[in-house]
Amino acid sequence: MEPIAPAKDKLLFTPGPLTTSLRVKQAMLTDAGSWHYEFNQKVAGIRERLLKLAGLSRQAGWEVVLLQGSGTFGVEAVFSTCVPPNGKVAVLANGAYGERALLMLRHARIEYVALRTAEDTPSDPTALDELLGRDPAITHVLAVHCETTSGILNPIQQIGEVVRQHKRSYIVDAMSSFGGIPIGFDLCGIDYLVSSANKCIEGVPGFCLVICKRERLLACEGWARSLSLDLLGQWKGFEKNGQFRYTPPTHSLLAFERALDELDAEGGVEARAARYQANHQELMDGMTRLGFRSYLAPIVQSYIITSFYFPEDPKFTFDAFYRGLSDRGFIIYPGKISQANLFRIGTIGRIFPSDLRQLTYAADEVLQELGVRMAADAVKTVA
Amino acid sequence: MEPIAPAKDKLLFTPGPLTTSLRVKQAMLTDAGSWHYEFNQKVAGIRERLLKLAGLSRQAGWEVVLLQGSGTFGVEAVFSTCVPPNGKVAVLANGAYGERALLMLRHARIEYVALRTAEDTPSDPTALDELLGRDPAITHVLAVHCETTSGILNPIQQIGEVVRQHKRSYIVDAMSSFGGIPIGFDLCGIDYLVSSANKCIEGVPGFCLVICKRERLLACEGWARSLSLDLLGQWKGFEKNGQFRYTPPTHSLLAFERALDELDAEGGVEARAARYQANHQELMDGMTRLGFRSYLAPIVQSYIITSFYFPEDPKFTFDAFYRGLSDRGFIIYPGKISQANLFRIGTIGRIFPSDLRQLTYAADEVLQELGVRMAADAVKTVA
Repeated sequence: MEPIAPAKDKLLFTPGPLTTSLRVKQAMLTDAGSWHYEFNQKVAGIRERLLKLAGLSRQAGWEVVLLQGSGTFGVEAVFSTCVPPNGKVAVLANGAYGERALLMLRHARIEYVALRTAEDTPSDPTALDELLGRDPAITHVLAVHCETTSGILNPIQQIGEVVRQHKRSYIVDAMSSFGGIPIGFDLCGIDYLVSSANKCIEGVPGFCLVICKRERLLACEGWARSLSLDLLGQWKGFEKNGQFRYTPPTHSLLAFERALDELDAEGGVEARAARYQANHQELMDGMTRLGFRSYLAPIVQSYIITSFYFPEDPKFTFDAFYRGLSDRGFIIYPGKISQANLFRIGTIGRIFPSDLRQLTYAADEVLQELGVRMAADAVKTVA
Repeated sequence: MEPIAPAKDKLLFTPGPLTTSLRVKQAMLTDAGSWHYEFNQKVAGIRERLLKLAGLSRQAGWEVVLLQGSGTFGVEAVFSTCVPPNGKVAVLANGAYGERALLMLRHARIEYVALRTAEDTPSDPTALDELLGRDPAITHVLAVHCETTSGILNPIQQIGEVVRQHKRSYIVDAMSSFGGIPIGFDLCGIDYLVSSANKCIEGVPGFCLVICKRERLLACEGWARSLSLDLLGQWKGFEKNGQFRYTPPTHSLLAFERALDELDAEGGVEARAARYQANHQELMDGMTRLGFRSYLAPIVQSYIITSFYFPEDPKFTFDAFYRGLSDRGFIIYPGKISQANLFRIGTIGRIFPSDLRQLTYAADEVLQELGVRMAADAVKTVA
């Protein structure tokens, strides 16, 4: 008989799937019937609790739709269901997730316009104001809250104010922020927010979630371009009999229920945000001490994930650095920016400041093993 | 500290999600990095082993594409990616899954024609022959192998011979049969087969799988109507770096790898088929003894799932029967046929003939508790 779990998993410093608690994973040791009333009650409870977490309610006109698949499926489901046949979407893009949204629209043969800023520059509400002013065909605007390509935080409130002034619909991709960064739905004027089970709520992957205004959703009758990604159809399924229309990832849902318990126990979104901030601070302190430089200006840097430049010493290769850390039980993430040599370190999931400290100790070891000379070493030598 | 798992899960006699082994579920007690090389090796291994299970190989021109979501997502992905802009699909329908395929095509604005038979009657190869003869616009044919709406088995080989004669593409929805019923891909002339993680391979839900001919898939460039459901794009992702394009259900994949181990250990598809057949036989014996009548003629009845008529005694209600069985730890499935009052009992998953025997004992108890008089009682009384 092999052991129930390895002695210790490698810790994941990524934008997700993340390290989750053992208790969250243990919730998956049960096979639930997807048609069974006990399971449906759990699904109803999850939907209810997500609204509460967002500071919203059904009474105030809000709904939660859970959908099988990754977060990408959720963003595409909103486009595919909620943009009318002659609709047009403006996408604020400063990274891979904005670009992916554009790719979805192209696949779905939906008209779109990209409003790009550089990967280290937040999306621009003023440029959006001008765009919406001159293009009345635009029906929807998508912004990415935390663009994990770089780790930048986009100003979803200022963008939302512009969208509201121009009376368009507002979609926020809050994949890696919801549950970890407080979001004021009314303040931002959000119509649709998309997130995923395996981000700041610290569940496991398997489904995504869309929080939206009921009246917006109900207005989309007949527009869906896909059956599987039909958000309105999915919602109607929940309303009809409490069930997913098609086989749900039952185990992921059981894990998610447990993850919501743990989020409550931690003290909710504010407390989780504080832990993630402490994680980020510990990381920045340690990496700066080692001589690493981060990519973004502190003012636009999220505490979700951070991009660091490769050291200049040619002895550094990402592959060797990555494997050295992996051998020590730490999994970091490659960069995704085309213009610079970067790697990324996530600070979300069931990880704590002490884990970040261990990571930077391990990074120091690996650098020494590789014989990489850091800028900081030069300083030390001079001193 | 609460226990790792409940003393005993209720057993699932459903078409899936199914009862899985504890070892399969324990494989989910690990958080894997979706970008990490160790995880990618597992994904590559799973794809390789699925081909072998199907009696196919890459050398012979076959590919496996895994896709996030339920089996429905897989069928829609084939349509959405592989039917050309002016294509047309003939769907052989005799239950809810054939009808669902038609609904997908309607959503995707793809032309289609339905070739229906009654829910208790197998799909008709002769009628298909005639249809394909008079409609050259039809490019693809979809058949459902085991239509779990009733439990009927459709003649995918005879249908495939007709499709081959007419040189069309052949899609088989083998959701609830692949891994539990031997399927001859070449014999049937299958171009695309769709199945799911949580059926006869006895994994947990979270993704589906498409096994297809590489040359067919490569010919679909530029047709995809959805990014998330782009089967060719997904395949290219695996080829490029071994990764899912978008966050995979890592835990479901770890469970699936373990499930493949257990399928091998059991003796492969033939051995599993033998167990499922024994399950079905035990069920039929027990239910017949109790006086239940099954819906389908034995000649077209699969050993995957079986529909039974409600007893005629008005004291029988499905809800009370279902709850009585649930209270005893057995979860059955409601009927799905519009024309008759039925319930269904699945015989797949990590369940054994002794479990089916226990189920029929429990059913007997519940009937007595409800005071339901069965036809068999009448016979006994007369005797």
